[in-house]
Amino acid sequence: MPERRPAPTSASAELSAGHPPTAGYTVTDYLLDRLAELGVDRVFGVPGDFTLGLLDHIEAHSVVSWVGTANELGAGYAADGYARLRGIGALCTTFGVGELSAVNAVAGSYAEHVGVLHLVGAPSQAAQAAGRALHHSLGDGDFRHFYRMSAEITVAQAVLTATNYAAEIDRVLLAIREQHLPGYLLLATDVGEVDAQPPAAPLPAHRDLTSPGALAGFAEAARGLLVGALGVGVGGTVEAGAGVGAGVGVRRAGVGRVAVLADLLVHRLGAEAELHELLATAQPDGRPLAHATLLWGRRVVDESAPGYLGAYEGSASAPAVRHGIEDADALILAGVQFTDLTSGFFSQHFDDSRVIRLDPHRASVAGIEFGPVDLPDALGVLSGILRSLAANAANAANAANAANEVAAMAASAVAGAEVASTTVASGTPLSQAALWSEVAAALRPGDLVLADQGTSFYGMGAERLPHGVVFVGQPLWASIGYTLPALIGAALAAPERRPILLIGDGAAQLTAVELGTMMRLGLAPIVVIVNNDGYTVERAIHGPTARYNDIAPWNWTALPAALARDAGDLFTTRASTVGELRAALEDARAADSALSLVEAVVPRLDVPPLLAAIAAAAARANAPAPPAP
Amino acid sequence: MPERRPAPTSASAELSAGHPPTAGYTVTDYLLDRLAELGVDRVFGVPGDFTLGLLDHIEAHSVVSWVGTANELGAGYAADGYARLRGIGALCTTFGVGELSAVNAVAGSYAEHVGVLHLVGAPSQAAQAAGRALHHSLGDGDFRHFYRMSAEITVAQAVLTATNYAAEIDRVLLAIREQHLPGYLLLATDVGEVDAQPPAAPLPAHRDLTSPGALAGFAEAARGLLVGALGVGVGGTVEAGAGVGAGVGVRRAGVGRVAVLADLLVHRLGAEAELHELLATAQPDGRPLAHATLLWGRRVVDESAPGYLGAYEGSASAPAVRHGIEDADALILAGVQFTDLTSGFFSQHFDDSRVIRLDPHRASVAGIEFGPVDLPDALGVLSGILRSLAANAANAANAANAANEVAAMAASAVAGAEVASTTVASGTPLSQAALWSEVAAALRPGDLVLADQGTSFYGMGAERLPHGVVFVGQPLWASIGYTLPALIGAALAAPERRPILLIGDGAAQLTAVELGTMMRLGLAPIVVIVNNDGYTVERAIHGPTARYNDIAPWNWTALPAALARDAGDLFTTRASTVGELRAALEDARAADSALSLVEAVVPRLDVPPLLAAIAAAAARANAPAPPAP
Repeated sequence: MPERRPAPTSASAELSAGHPPTAGYTVTDYLLDRLAELGVDRVFGVPGDFTLGLLDHIEAHSVVSWVGTANELGAGYAADGYARLRGIGALCTTFGVGELSAVNAVAGSYAEHVGVLHLVGAPSQAAQAAGRALHHSLGDGDFRHFYRMSAEITVAQAVLTATNYAAEIDRVLLAIREQHLPGYLLLATDVGEVDAQPPAAPLPAHRDLTSPGALAGFAEAARGLLVGALGVGVGGTVEAGAGVGAGVGVRRAGVGRVAVLADLLVHRLGAEAELHELLATAQPDGRPLAHATLLWGRRVVDESAPGYLGAYEGSASAPAVRHGIEDADALILAGVQFTDLTSGFFSQHFDDSRVIRLDPHRASVAGIEFGPVDLPDALGVLSGILRSLAANAANAANAANAANEVAAMAASAVAGAEVASTTVASGTPLSQAALWSEVAAALRPGDLVLADQGTSFYGMGAERLPHGVVFVGQPLWASIGYTLPALIGAALAAPERRPILLIGDGAAQLTAVELGTMMRLGLAPIVVIVNNDGYTVERAIHGPTARYNDIAPWNWTALPAALARDAGDLFTTRASTVGELRAALEDARAADSALSLVEAVVPRLDVPPLLAAIAAAAARANAPAPPAP
Repeated sequence: MPERRPAPTSASAELSAGHPPTAGYTVTDYLLDRLAELGVDRVFGVPGDFTLGLLDHIEAHSVVSWVGTANELGAGYAADGYARLRGIGALCTTFGVGELSAVNAVAGSYAEHVGVLHLVGAPSQAAQAAGRALHHSLGDGDFRHFYRMSAEITVAQAVLTATNYAAEIDRVLLAIREQHLPGYLLLATDVGEVDAQPPAAPLPAHRDLTSPGALAGFAEAARGLLVGALGVGVGGTVEAGAGVGAGVGVRRAGVGRVAVLADLLVHRLGAEAELHELLATAQPDGRPLAHATLLWGRRVVDESAPGYLGAYEGSASAPAVRHGIEDADALILAGVQFTDLTSGFFSQHFDDSRVIRLDPHRASVAGIEFGPVDLPDALGVLSGILRSLAANAANAANAANAANEVAAMAASAVAGAEVASTTVASGTPLSQAALWSEVAAALRPGDLVLADQGTSFYGMGAERLPHGVVFVGQPLWASIGYTLPALIGAALAAPERRPILLIGDGAAQLTAVELGTMMRLGLAPIVVIVNNDGYTVERAIHGPTARYNDIAPWNWTALPAALARDAGDLFTTRASTVGELRAALEDARAADSALSLVEAVVPRLDVPPLLAAIAAAAARANAPAPPAP
């Protein structure tokens, strides 16, 4: 191992600008110190001979430590899971074989707005320059193939050298932090060991891009639209809609409703506090603000809040949710990106003249845009407007009844699930409907829930989550198997939360080797394997009984012990009835010192209603166009 | 399922040019018929909603069938293994998530000259044109990111349409066949269902590129070099080296030695018959032609042949091999590509003036190039020259002694291994040295042996393989875990061979889920897991006791039963001594109706001598350059 300086106790201890080269301080150390400064304390990966040198520096670092996974795809997913809890994550792989095994995960981070550094160890500069057939290369002397591939799925890339390292590391890390997208650094073995200077100063703080003038314009227009929609103005008088909200026309005082539809980008942009403040603001008539999320963004709201309607999914939404959002007199879209699988294949339907839309750096009111306006600032403005309207409202008398009305609407959106969970006899064979209500009933505030794309994600889509639950899914990239390794990263990033994995058997087979990694790390997740004997999400779309939707039948309850020589207090069981599942989840909750695996056996063609609606839409989208006349 | 025509009984039944559109015959059918014409009867992959339609056509096809694997990397490796036995293979994945999971395998096919079609199912053309955030896309409306990524690691690519399908499918498949490199086809769901015409004619046959004039020039030059080197001419008289071979000078009759170093490209170019003919040609003095292979190309020779010296590995070669190759008076390099790990980090050393070098489409004699000259033609010319020289030689009397000399040289190259296998007591704890000689002793003619990059590949490097064994490794791309799924494809391509997998525990963890696929398919491989508690090949290079080279400890013998609900006649055992291993291998050979898994426990820092030499060279190559003065 190279000679090492004493490790600093905090990142800021490094920032001693202008001093002479620190003995043994290298380019790799600079990179690790910057990662630590950004809050990264784990790097995920699989070692390779082009990364072993830099792994020595990770082993020696006081903040950043190494987490080896079974394979690189697992490492990429774990880094993504970590970043979803911490804001930024890091993955380290070796040239060619390692990095390409992880690109699916990195592309997923891009699609889902997750900031992950992909650090790749490369052959020495001299070996590359010689252009020979080195292992892990294509043998054609070109060592930039994979760099170019990465450029398609990362927001910033750099090939580090002895002279550019500080500027390029800072540039790529800042792009990751600011844009919530992955970045790529290629570090040759020799460059990693070059003498370096510690960072001269901390990375620049996040810059708010909002223009005060644009924000004022937005505030005025938004106020106009809200006043018009609500039919309530300053002093409680009925006021004709003004400004851009004029199209909505005059409304009867206290009848208009404001609703909020929030999505994932609220989280990515760090605007959750501002959203929660907005949602806590009552409408002028005292009713709680009705709100929903897309399934992608359900982590940004508290699903136990009185105004929460449920998940909005376009035409596949529960009727009460659809009505509450689409028929609102004013609708605030906060950080919403519609994707096919989160919008019932783009079946969302709004009257643009009633919509206030907040994007990351711009806002619009009834289609008129204002920018640059950052999402948190726009949310703050809306809270202020609603508070002032409420303070001035004269119709407080209606508040109690109106609150009841919204609460009734919210309750009806989840009535089906609640009824199911209280009426099913314990001897009833397990079904998708019963499965998800039982799982939801077993959740506790603050849990970390990962639901794989398929029956798990959509099955949970109809359930309410307790207060403070973080819910992780991947509905845009939709790479089955993602959540199993992602749990590793998420659990390490938030050790105070109990991790719960919900995943189908077909999906789990893609990445199941990482169960061994979980046990090696001493994690104690509850893993629910939904055994429906194949790719049920595919069966729902096409080929319900086709052989290509079959998979190898595994003994799921025997698997964890095979993947851990000392399995510890491992708990595994198989549940085929509602009662068995209830008992299994209870036992799993109690067994919190080691991994618990519950194999939940459900019929192979049983599909949650929400998934059935989505699958039908997917099948239509994939069908050939009707023949030309 | 779409309406289907009756399946043809052979590809040629399709070739009915000029008839009207066949009812229900689609673009997908055209592609499958072309694959069948090329000898492909299996397509490997994982289903996704953008491929389900085309999978229906595979299910209905009379020749091509579907093989589902646990994940896409496994499918890519399996397709590569299949192609190594059949000449061409096929992999089918879904857009984005599926294809990117397989790119490491596809890049490996490129590096290792393996022709694999990567067929990707994409969203419908209309859905792509709308530019919306579809699942499995990055959400930015650009549906060519992954196509561009594939262009870096494939020799030909196409986006199929209703009008270009015939030309583009044929172009990409021909490029794969002729260049032994992977190709990429993007097939939108709707395009796959478009009415099509069956192929109008078979694909054009392989074209021999050799120029008769160039071949004649090569023949004359090669004859001059060989005559000069051997010191024997027409009629047995000593003849001064003529033509380009003149630099070698005059030699005493019967003393010069010709040697052949063959490598992988002989196989890829279909020149094995021509190589075997050359190697069966005695030298003018009657001695067998001394020959060796790089470890990459050991499948192209018969290691039980009398003239076989062993594996050539530059400075890491056994002394007798090194001497036999480097000191030959004339050295024929047949289809050789030197890579770092197969040449002792480019430590090969030859006198160019004595070298006849045969590349795929060009040949050179003492550095003077002739072309186009295809490798099989050049080999044929050399066989002819040596035969005519031998027929004319006057010194047949020396033949017996000389033959003994070469045989002795060849024997000394493997003496160590043979001694080890006959003297080790059965109670001796297992070591790398004992492991590989025992494994080699258990091999039978015609076996299919896959050795993963690491101790398995290099451990077997010092062992002789029985006649007709096909040996598969991946020393250029060197992606650990490759051989486990590759076995699936290779075994399906050559069901008459018993498949034997040699793989370390660290490597096997990357892809172990495909053991379930093997059992589901009813394969009966012998799987030897070398349990040395981590990444020993990395330990040998750097960080022998570093934590990053540790892995999760698995219960290997419990794993197969966990990955198969009905494990059948599964045989698993753990061997810690030489005797236990011998018995285990014997039992595994006998249990030929189901998977056998032998966990061979060896010390964690024990390394085959050949690997130690390579690892030391790798460590030197990765080290930083010495500081500038």
